[in-house]
Amino acid sequence: MTAVLNSKLLEFDGHLARLERSLKELSIAMPVSAAQLKAIHEELIQKNNLVEGGIYLQISRGNAGDRDFAFPDAEVKPTLVLFTQARPVINHPNAAKGIKVVTMPDIRWHRRDIKTVGLLAPCLAKEYAHANDADDAFLVENGFITEGSSSNAYIVLADNTVVTRPLSNDILHGITRKSLLLLAERDGIKVEERLFTPDEAYHAKEAFISSATTFVWPVVSIDGKPVGDGKPGPVAQRLREIYLEIAKKETA
Amino acid sequence: MTAVLNSKLLEFDGHLARLERSLKELSIAMPVSAAQLKAIHEELIQKNNLVEGGIYLQISRGNAGDRDFAFPDAEVKPTLVLFTQARPVINHPNAAKGIKVVTMPDIRWHRRDIKTVGLLAPCLAKEYAHANDADDAFLVENGFITEGSSSNAYIVLADNTVVTRPLSNDILHGITRKSLLLLAERDGIKVEERLFTPDEAYHAKEAFISSATTFVWPVVSIDGKPVGDGKPGPVAQRLREIYLEIAKKETA
Repeated sequence: MTAVLNSKLLEFDGHLARLERSLKELSIAMPVSAAQLKAIHEELIQKNNLVEGGIYLQISRGNAGDRDFAFPDAEVKPTLVLFTQARPVINHPNAAKGIKVVTMPDIRWHRRDIKTVGLLAPCLAKEYAHANDADDAFLVENGFITEGSSSNAYIVLADNTVVTRPLSNDILHGITRKSLLLLAERDGIKVEERLFTPDEAYHAKEAFISSATTFVWPVVSIDGKPVGDGKPGPVAQRLREIYLEIAKKETA
Repeated sequence: MTAVLNSKLLEFDGHLARLERSLKELSIAMPVSAAQLKAIHEELIQKNNLVEGGIYLQISRGNAGDRDFAFPDAEVKPTLVLFTQARPVINHPNAAKGIKVVTMPDIRWHRRDIKTVGLLAPCLAKEYAHANDADDAFLVENGFITEGSSSNAYIVLADNTVVTRPLSNDILHGITRKSLLLLAERDGIKVEERLFTPDEAYHAKEAFISSATTFVWPVVSIDGKPVGDGKPGPVAQRLREIYLEIAKKETA
């Protein structure tokens, strides 16, 4: 899902690079050139009069004519599907009020670095959160938080250091995550990429999530316990602010 | 996938019960009654003149009109899709010559007891097997074999005891597995439901897999090492024989 602001694509190159990596890991050929893909995105924005929201993209291995676990023959063309979703990104209410999360076991497959449509576990997580008076879930594996159900997860320590899990097969390599970490360092915010536990998160000064279409949303409670003073924290707000600045510049 | 022999459904009740359990675990309502579902199966057999093969069934949460992780509103009807596949089941060549398997890490999600369409990891496993001169993969987690990429896995010890992993969230609760274990006990074949390692499998007298449309296929090599004398073993062959007997009776 590539975000769209002001009818322009945000961080398209990052999404393209990750898509190419995912396809390579799955031995799926890119069905169109990078330039063609970008043109299709831009055409969709135009045709749908999309001002703010996102473009969803899905590539499958193609239609081999019958169901089989084995990959189809090389001449079978991958299938490309895209559509737009209009929604508030810059002024989403969760950005101002923050979200409540609950922790739960991370039962997803072990290649979370590959963005796939196998999203049943994240859907179950989101639903579990909603059933437990929360907006989203922090997933926990071997005692450590991996990420949110469709976002990367961060905590802020007492000394304002931002802590987030390092890249591996265990988490999605967020495009927004990458930009945020760069922007944080540039802004003098210390970043530590390391594992952290739910207990550390309970006692953190702040917590937040990032994703392509939420940018930064503060987390104000975890498992019913307020994070910090239970209000969106200044580090999360600052990071959202500087990301928005860059995002608006890119889509001006 | 329910097997069809002689234009009749095999073990339909078992598949129905597992489907109902999977749907319940995922909070999806059964879109038709059990009797209607059976009638649809039978209609498909007729309309497709299916004599031998299987019927594939898929139920999704339904079309809510837009993409979202959250479950759709209760009034959204689940979508039911079925189709037939004609293929040799009784006289499949692999039943006579056996299959070669390779071991590899089990990277699937942690609710393998729920049969879902999230089959990317099994597809990658099957492809890995084909790329490594094998027919299928035995998946390994924490040092123990869980199952095949779309089958349950068994080994036979020196004293002819059949060993297979006990039911849990770690493996699919095979309909054929359940019947085989009952038939084995009835035939005087000792069965032990416990974890086993690749190393134990390398040194087993026999190995085999079971699934709804393969029934029993002997495994003649694992990771390039012959199992026993490298030929289909008598216990696997006997189990296939007695399962076939029952299957033919049920579909007579």
